[in-house]
Amino acid sequence: MFESAEIGHKLGKKEFDREEPKLRRALLDAQYDLLEQARFPVIILVNGVDGAGKGETVNLFNEWMDPRHIHTHAFGGSTDAERQRPEMWRFWRALPPKGRIGILFGSWYTDPILQRVMESESAAEFNERLARIRDHERMLVAEGALIVKLWFHLSKDAQKKRLKELSAKKKTAWRVTKEDWKHFKRYDEFVGVCEHALKETSTGEAPWNVIEGSDHEYRSLTAGRLLLDALQRRLKNPAAPPVSREPLPQPAIDQRDVLNTADYKRKLTREDYSRKLDKLQGELSLLTRHKKMRERSLVMVFEGMDAAGKGSTIRRITRAMDARFYHIVPIAAPSDEERAHPYLWRFWRHVPPHGHAVIFDRSWYGRVLVERVEKFCAEGDWMRAYHEINEFEEQLASGGAIVAKFWLAISPDEQLRRFKERAKIPHKQFKITDEDWRNRKKWPQYERAVADMIDRTSTGIAPWNVIASNDKPWARVETLKRLVETLERAL
Amino acid sequence: MFESAEIGHKLGKKEFDREEPKLRRALLDAQYDLLEQARFPVIILVNGVDGAGKGETVNLFNEWMDPRHIHTHAFGGSTDAERQRPEMWRFWRALPPKGRIGILFGSWYTDPILQRVMESESAAEFNERLARIRDHERMLVAEGALIVKLWFHLSKDAQKKRLKELSAKKKTAWRVTKEDWKHFKRYDEFVGVCEHALKETSTGEAPWNVIEGSDHEYRSLTAGRLLLDALQRRLKNPAAPPVSREPLPQPAIDQRDVLNTADYKRKLTREDYSRKLDKLQGELSLLTRHKKMRERSLVMVFEGMDAAGKGSTIRRITRAMDARFYHIVPIAAPSDEERAHPYLWRFWRHVPPHGHAVIFDRSWYGRVLVERVEKFCAEGDWMRAYHEINEFEEQLASGGAIVAKFWLAISPDEQLRRFKERAKIPHKQFKITDEDWRNRKKWPQYERAVADMIDRTSTGIAPWNVIASNDKPWARVETLKRLVETLERAL
Repeated sequence: MFESAEIGHKLGKKEFDREEPKLRRALLDAQYDLLEQARFPVIILVNGVDGAGKGETVNLFNEWMDPRHIHTHAFGGSTDAERQRPEMWRFWRALPPKGRIGILFGSWYTDPILQRVMESESAAEFNERLARIRDHERMLVAEGALIVKLWFHLSKDAQKKRLKELSAKKKTAWRVTKEDWKHFKRYDEFVGVCEHALKETSTGEAPWNVIEGSDHEYRSLTAGRLLLDALQRRLKNPAAPPVSREPLPQPAIDQRDVLNTADYKRKLTREDYSRKLDKLQGELSLLTRHKKMRERSLVMVFEGMDAAGKGSTIRRITRAMDARFYHIVPIAAPSDEERAHPYLWRFWRHVPPHGHAVIFDRSWYGRVLVERVEKFCAEGDWMRAYHEINEFEEQLASGGAIVAKFWLAISPDEQLRRFKERAKIPHKQFKITDEDWRNRKKWPQYERAVADMIDRTSTGIAPWNVIASNDKPWARVETLKRLVETLERAL
Repeated sequence: MFESAEIGHKLGKKEFDREEPKLRRALLDAQYDLLEQARFPVIILVNGVDGAGKGETVNLFNEWMDPRHIHTHAFGGSTDAERQRPEMWRFWRALPPKGRIGILFGSWYTDPILQRVMESESAAEFNERLARIRDHERMLVAEGALIVKLWFHLSKDAQKKRLKELSAKKKTAWRVTKEDWKHFKRYDEFVGVCEHALKETSTGEAPWNVIEGSDHEYRSLTAGRLLLDALQRRLKNPAAPPVSREPLPQPAIDQRDVLNTADYKRKLTREDYSRKLDKLQGELSLLTRHKKMRERSLVMVFEGMDAAGKGSTIRRITRAMDARFYHIVPIAAPSDEERAHPYLWRFWRHVPPHGHAVIFDRSWYGRVLVERVEKFCAEGDWMRAYHEINEFEEQLASGGAIVAKFWLAISPDEQLRRFKERAKIPHKQFKITDEDWRNRKKWPQYERAVADMIDRTSTGIAPWNVIASNDKPWARVETLKRLVETLERAL
C-alpha cells in the first residue's frame, strides 16, 4: 500500500509558490461554503510514521483556512477521565458539528497499531478492533459525516534521513525524541502492522489516502488538494448517499507514479536470457513439486496494458510446470451466467484446490481498471471493490493459497512500436484490434487507475510485482525470478 | 434477542388453513415476478437450534413455490474439495443467480458458532470471523442480493419437549441423533454464543429475523410471510439502494408480543411494598458503595409508554443513592448543537466515569421508538440503529459500565385510567398534554416498535427488563430487585 509513497515524490519550490495561493483561496472558499450550508461535519484523520510531516500539515491547514472553525485535537496517552470511560469516548467528544472541520491528530488508529506492534494484542484482537473501527466510520458516514483519512508515509531510508536532519539542527532537535528512535528500530514491524490496518479499514465510504512525506512542497500540496477535492465534491451534493461521498484517489501532483518511474532501460542479452531462463524454470519446476505444495495452492494474476507481453510471459512459466498442476483462466467479458452473480463469483469458481495452480490472464482487477475507466460500473462500486478484493485475497491466503500478482509495465512508446509491428506481420494481425487503439487513447486514465490499484491492493499477503517489460527477455526472467522467490518464501 | 421467541407463540389450525392458500399463491406470484425480472438473487439463510423446524420450513418453501427455481443447499461437514479451498468457497458455489432463490441451510454461521461453543476459538477470533461475515453480507447486498436471514429458536424447555416428542414416535425417532442430545446439554452456552453472533451480524442491510419454532402453524406462516414481505418490497423497487432493501420486522401473526403477554395482574399490598422497598433500597445503597464499584460505572435506561411511571420509579432508586454518585439525564427533543452531531453523540457526552452512575429518562432508544413511529428519520436510519446501539452498549460494557435497561410496561386500559386521573387532579394536569393523547392513538405502532426493539437489542451484556407496571408498588419493587440482581452479578 506504500509503493507510491516510496518513489521520491518531489515538487519544485517555484511550482509550490505558484500553486499554493490558488489552493489556499479555494480551501477558504470551500470552508466558508461548508460553514454556511452547515449540512455535514468534516473529520480529518491524520496518521502516519514519525517525521513524515503530520504536524506541519495540520499547521498548514490551520494557516490556509480560518482556524476559528477548525478544531484540532491531538490524542496522546489517555487522561484519567478518559481511562474511566469507553475507549471511543474521547473521540466522540472531539467530533465536529455540522459545518465545522475537526482534525484528529493521532486518532482511533493509534492505540490498536501500537498495541499490535508491541505485541500486547493478538492478531485476532487487532482485527476485531479494526472491524469495530470500520463499523464506527461507516456509522459516521451514514450519519452524514465526510471523513478524510490521510496517512503520511516515509520509506525506511527517508525516515532515517529525516530524523537525522531534524536532530542535527538546533532549532528542530527537540522534536526528535528517544521514542522516535525507538520506533525507528522497529520500522519494518511497524510498517507491516500499519499496512494491515490500512488494508482492513480502507473502505469505499472512508478510504485511506497515503501521502509520501519526505518533500515539504509535494506533501503539503497533495494533502491540501485531497482535502479540497473531497470538500468540493461533497458541497456540490451535501445529501449524497454514502457511496459517492468518499474523496476519490487523486493523480500525484508531480505526475510521478509507480508506472512512469519504473526503469524501462533494463535489458538482457540473448545469451544471459536463455541461461537464466533455464535455471529459473528448473527451480520453479522443483518448487511446484515441493512436498509442502500439497498443502498449498498457487494463484497467479497477470495484468498489464495491451501488448505488454502477458501471454508470452505466461508461456515461459507454464513450460516449467506439469500440465496437471495448473489451469490458465483467461478473463474477458463475463458470460450471462457470470453477470447474474455477484462480481467476484466468476473468480471464486476457479479457486484451485491444494496442490494446484491457477493463472489468471487478467483478473478481478478488471473492476478497478477497465470497468472504472470505461465507466462500466458506478464510482461507488469500484471504490468499494478495493476493500472487497483485499478481503478476497485475504481469504485465499488464509485458505492456503500463495498469491502472486504481476503488472507487466511498458512505456507508451513501446506499446506503439509493438502495435505497429503487429499490424505489419500477417500472423500477428489478429492480435491488434480497433479496441486496442481506442484503449491506447485513454492511457492517462488507465495509468492513474493502475497507480491507484497498486496503492490500494498491494498488501503484505499479496503484493504487486511491477515488472518493467519494455525488454521482453528481461521481463520474463524477472517475473520468473519473483515467482520463484515468492514460492521459496512461502514453502 | 430471543425474548419474543419464548412467549409461546401459537396459531390455530383453522387460521392456518385459511391463511396458507393465500400466502402460497402470493409467494408463487412473487417467485415468478422475480424470475421474470431477473434483477436480483434471493439468498435465504436458515439457522437456529435443533428441532426448531428448520427442515420443515425449507420443505414448505419448496412445496409452496416452484422448486425448479429454488436451489437448496445443506452444508454439513466439509468435503475434501472444500477443505482444500478458502472457507467461503462452498458458499460462493451455492449462490443463486439473479431471478433465483437459494436456500442455505446451515450457512456461514454454523462453523464459527460451533467452534466458539466448543471453545476451540477465542472470543476475539470469533468476533473477527463475525466481522468478516458482516462484510461479506454487505458486499452481497451492495452487489444487489436480497438476503433473508431466518433464525429458528426454541426455549430450553421447548427444545427438550420437542426432542422427546420426536424420539417417542417411530416415524420421527430417526431424526433425533445423539449429537442433538449432546448439543442440548450445552443449551445455555450454545444460546449465549448464538445470541452474540446475532447481535454482531444483525445489520441494517441484512438483519436477523428470529422465529419461535415450537408451533408448526405459527412458525410456518411467520417464515412464509417474512419471505413474502421481503420479496414484494424488493420487487417493487428492484434497484433500490442497500439501505431500504432489508426485510422489515413483522408483527407476530398471532398478535402476541412481549408487551401484551406480560402479567399485568401482579400486585403488592402497601405493607409488603414498604417492607420490600426498604430492604431493596438498603441493598442498593450498599452496592453503589461497593469497593468494586470504583472500577465500574452504572448506566441505567428507563423507557416506557406515557404515564408508565418512569419518573416515580427513578425517584425510588435515587433515594437509595448518594447525590454525588448519580446524574439523571432526561431526554427530550435534541438541542441545536446535538442535532449538528451524529445521533449517538448526545448520549456519549453523558457517559459516566468509573464510580458513577447515569440514569437516562428516555434514551438512545428514541430512534427506534418515537423517531420510527413518527417517521422523524428514514427507514434505513432506524434499521441500522439497532446494530449501532448494540455496538454502543458493547463499548459501554467493555469500558467497565454495567448497563441496566428497563421497559415499564402498562396496558392501554391502565394508561387511559391514569390519563383521566391526571386530567382531574389540578397538580397533575401539567403532566398530560395533547401530545400524550396523540401518541396514545398510535399505541399499536408503538407496541410493535417496542417488541422489535426488545428483540433486536436485548443482549447478554445489556438485557432488557420488561416490568409489568399496572401496579405501581409492584413495578417499583420489581425494578429495584432487578437492578440489585444486576449489580450483584456484576460486582
